[in-house]
Amino acid sequence: MEQRVIDTLREVFELNGFIGIETRAIEQGSSLLKKGETSKEIYLLSRLQEVGHESDTPVEQRLGLHFDLTVPLSRYVVEHSGQLPFPFKRWQIQKVWRGERPQEGRFREFVQADIDVVGEGTLPEHYEVELPLVMVGALERLREFGLPKATVHANNRKLSEGFYRGLGLEDIEGVLREIDKLDKIGADEVASLLVSECGATPDQAKACLELAQITASDGGALIDRFNGLCEIHHIDMDGDDYAMAKEGLDTLTMIVDEAARIRPGSVIADLKIARGLDYYTGSVYETFLDGADSLGSICSGGRYDNLATQGSRKYPGVGLSIGLSRLVSYMLHSAGATASRISPACVLVAVWNEENRADSNEVARQLRARGIAADVAPSAAKLGKQIKYADKLGIPYVWFPNEDPTDDGPDQVKNIVSGEQIDADAQSWEPDTVYARQTVTTNA
Amino acid sequence: MEQRVIDTLREVFELNGFIGIETRAIEQGSSLLKKGETSKEIYLLSRLQEVGHESDTPVEQRLGLHFDLTVPLSRYVVEHSGQLPFPFKRWQIQKVWRGERPQEGRFREFVQADIDVVGEGTLPEHYEVELPLVMVGALERLREFGLPKATVHANNRKLSEGFYRGLGLEDIEGVLREIDKLDKIGADEVASLLVSECGATPDQAKACLELAQITASDGGALIDRFNGLCEIHHIDMDGDDYAMAKEGLDTLTMIVDEAARIRPGSVIADLKIARGLDYYTGSVYETFLDGADSLGSICSGGRYDNLATQGSRKYPGVGLSIGLSRLVSYMLHSAGATASRISPACVLVAVWNEENRADSNEVARQLRARGIAADVAPSAAKLGKQIKYADKLGIPYVWFPNEDPTDDGPDQVKNIVSGEQIDADAQSWEPDTVYARQTVTTNA
Repeated sequence: MEQRVIDTLREVFELNGFIGIETRAIEQGSSLLKKGETSKEIYLLSRLQEVGHESDTPVEQRLGLHFDLTVPLSRYVVEHSGQLPFPFKRWQIQKVWRGERPQEGRFREFVQADIDVVGEGTLPEHYEVELPLVMVGALERLREFGLPKATVHANNRKLSEGFYRGLGLEDIEGVLREIDKLDKIGADEVASLLVSECGATPDQAKACLELAQITASDGGALIDRFNGLCEIHHIDMDGDDYAMAKEGLDTLTMIVDEAARIRPGSVIADLKIARGLDYYTGSVYETFLDGADSLGSICSGGRYDNLATQGSRKYPGVGLSIGLSRLVSYMLHSAGATASRISPACVLVAVWNEENRADSNEVARQLRARGIAADVAPSAAKLGKQIKYADKLGIPYVWFPNEDPTDDGPDQVKNIVSGEQIDADAQSWEPDTVYARQTVTTNA
Repeated sequence: MEQRVIDTLREVFELNGFIGIETRAIEQGSSLLKKGETSKEIYLLSRLQEVGHESDTPVEQRLGLHFDLTVPLSRYVVEHSGQLPFPFKRWQIQKVWRGERPQEGRFREFVQADIDVVGEGTLPEHYEVELPLVMVGALERLREFGLPKATVHANNRKLSEGFYRGLGLEDIEGVLREIDKLDKIGADEVASLLVSECGATPDQAKACLELAQITASDGGALIDRFNGLCEIHHIDMDGDDYAMAKEGLDTLTMIVDEAARIRPGSVIADLKIARGLDYYTGSVYETFLDGADSLGSICSGGRYDNLATQGSRKYPGVGLSIGLSRLVSYMLHSAGATASRISPACVLVAVWNEENRADSNEVARQLRARGIAADVAPSAAKLGKQIKYADKLGIPYVWFPNEDPTDDGPDQVKNIVSGEQIDADAQSWEPDTVYARQTVTTNA
């Protein structure tokens, strides 16, 4: 199931010209610790021989497991900058790990599916709408597996920061951190925290929450609502703070208008989107599924201008990441997706007796040579037991090699779902299309 | 490159009815430490918060990274025994880790590709020839990427143990461990070690080395050579030791004869094959490539009857494992395999000016909808620069949308490899077959 989803995503990413890379799971502590906020969830490694001496090595010099694919990408880009074609568009689907207490019995190990574009020095803005659209296109393809419609909610850090500064606030990171909690703890709690933790006045806190309530699906409406709010709160529209906000507003306007033109309803502006990570410098995205509010964002990302640097050279990037394990789990449990069968085999070739196993193997060989996945019965058990084995594996066809060596008659094949049994030749027989491949279906 | 190899293996495994599974990379120390011998190479994990307190937890209760896919399979089978169809045929391609000193700068992280069949209580012997043949078939498919011909060398633990015991030796594990060093340190060194470490007399050591010299590609020759050696060394052919050896000899005879019938030259008996791991109880396999002696075995495995147990219930298995990373590295460096291009894109759509980017995006959309991977130029730079970008990515075609909005004329597409430029319509144009997909070629 997860494999089929990965195959689909990879196909979409490659159709869009993204290059697949894989980075090692083990990175240097110094590289993993750069990012700050999630660093507490890192798993550090030690060799069995080092038990008792782990702490002799400073954390920065120890090894750890990567906790996302963005930090490894920035390391990779800097290391290979001489050989990479920029802008470098890459897809990457790998496991990541977050350190959790083992006694909780949960292994925090999951698959992320990322796309990013990284430029050398500069990165054109058009990628900030193209990447969320590639992700929406990929998620759209997953609807055949029962996934509901996905909508990207976009915001821009410059817009938020310019607005907050225009209000007179200074602890921008703090405000973003509290706003990020809106869905979890509600507006009243956030307002209190803005006052108690970020030095906001009640009026400033109120203005921050009003900003967070703005959504828009077209640029015109977005501009009207944002400028209206700036006027109400007396933000100087000739000042530097508004100029900063305006930069973000222009990008966000471009994003929603362009997305609406290409795929209406796929991307909306939603000014409460904050994103916890501090490396984003412009656009930020979260993605929600219709009717799956409790799931939260399933695909997040943004633009980061300063994550990868080499001396004075910068590698600005923009990217999004799907939390794939969570998504697949949702598809299996809530959307009711199921694999059509356990085994990839389409046919189980029966074995009449162990002496004739070679005949059954030869039938299987001929079927496989024509691309039809085939298994051979494990033992020459009673026929009922062989059919039961096929049934347990979900294999739809059981093949009966011609039983009588003195009779040159045809083999037979039985569809154990429909019960139909016909004469068949391993060199030419084809399964019915509906039974040909292991597929994913949904009962939702 | 590695991805193409993985895709090919997976296709072969699924054609043969193997079920793909994935197990978590993180296992309990107690589960990892069962196997003994390679346990010294385990990476243990600790959370960042635990730094300085790692040793408070006994190793068995800590978490570690899996170092192969066989130990996790045995854990998986026991955990899911109620739901699995037995015999359970599974393929698994995942990263594994071996703890190495970090200062060596080598991250011992690599991909293994395994197939195994696990039975419940019993497991028919025919799988002991079928599994190596599936692997040979899979490796045969990789010859299009420049891989030389592969030959499986098979032996049987019972044959070796019966022979050693028949000679009067008792430290069987010790003898196997020394014999396993033959290719590395040579016969003279091994003979000394057998005497000094395993309590062998010089004559017993000589007999062990003579056994290790026996190879055969058909069962008759194998039986003759083995029995001949038993006679020379006065092994009692009516005794228990020979009876044990005979069991292994029968299985090995079946394997080479059946393999010779189905795929001549694919599997030979080679009685020096010992395998370091102590959990093998019957057949053992190693696989060598023609002309790649220094590479050593690229695909190893065997039969293990006691690895997975649940109370008194046993789950005997047989399986083989390809060391994929090493194999791919060999293919890239020695066999000269290269990807036909860096980017999966077949076409780069040029952009005349940023205002018309939407037209170029629309061309790309139409191509992708027909399964043709397409990228769009990052910026409306000079045409030469756009073509250079395509060239750097190895993208063979550059598409020129009709430049003049007042002229309803056709688009054009240029093959930048051949220089040919033709009129083209994004709804119907097809790339030449040779340029259509990213492929792997070999200059060997």
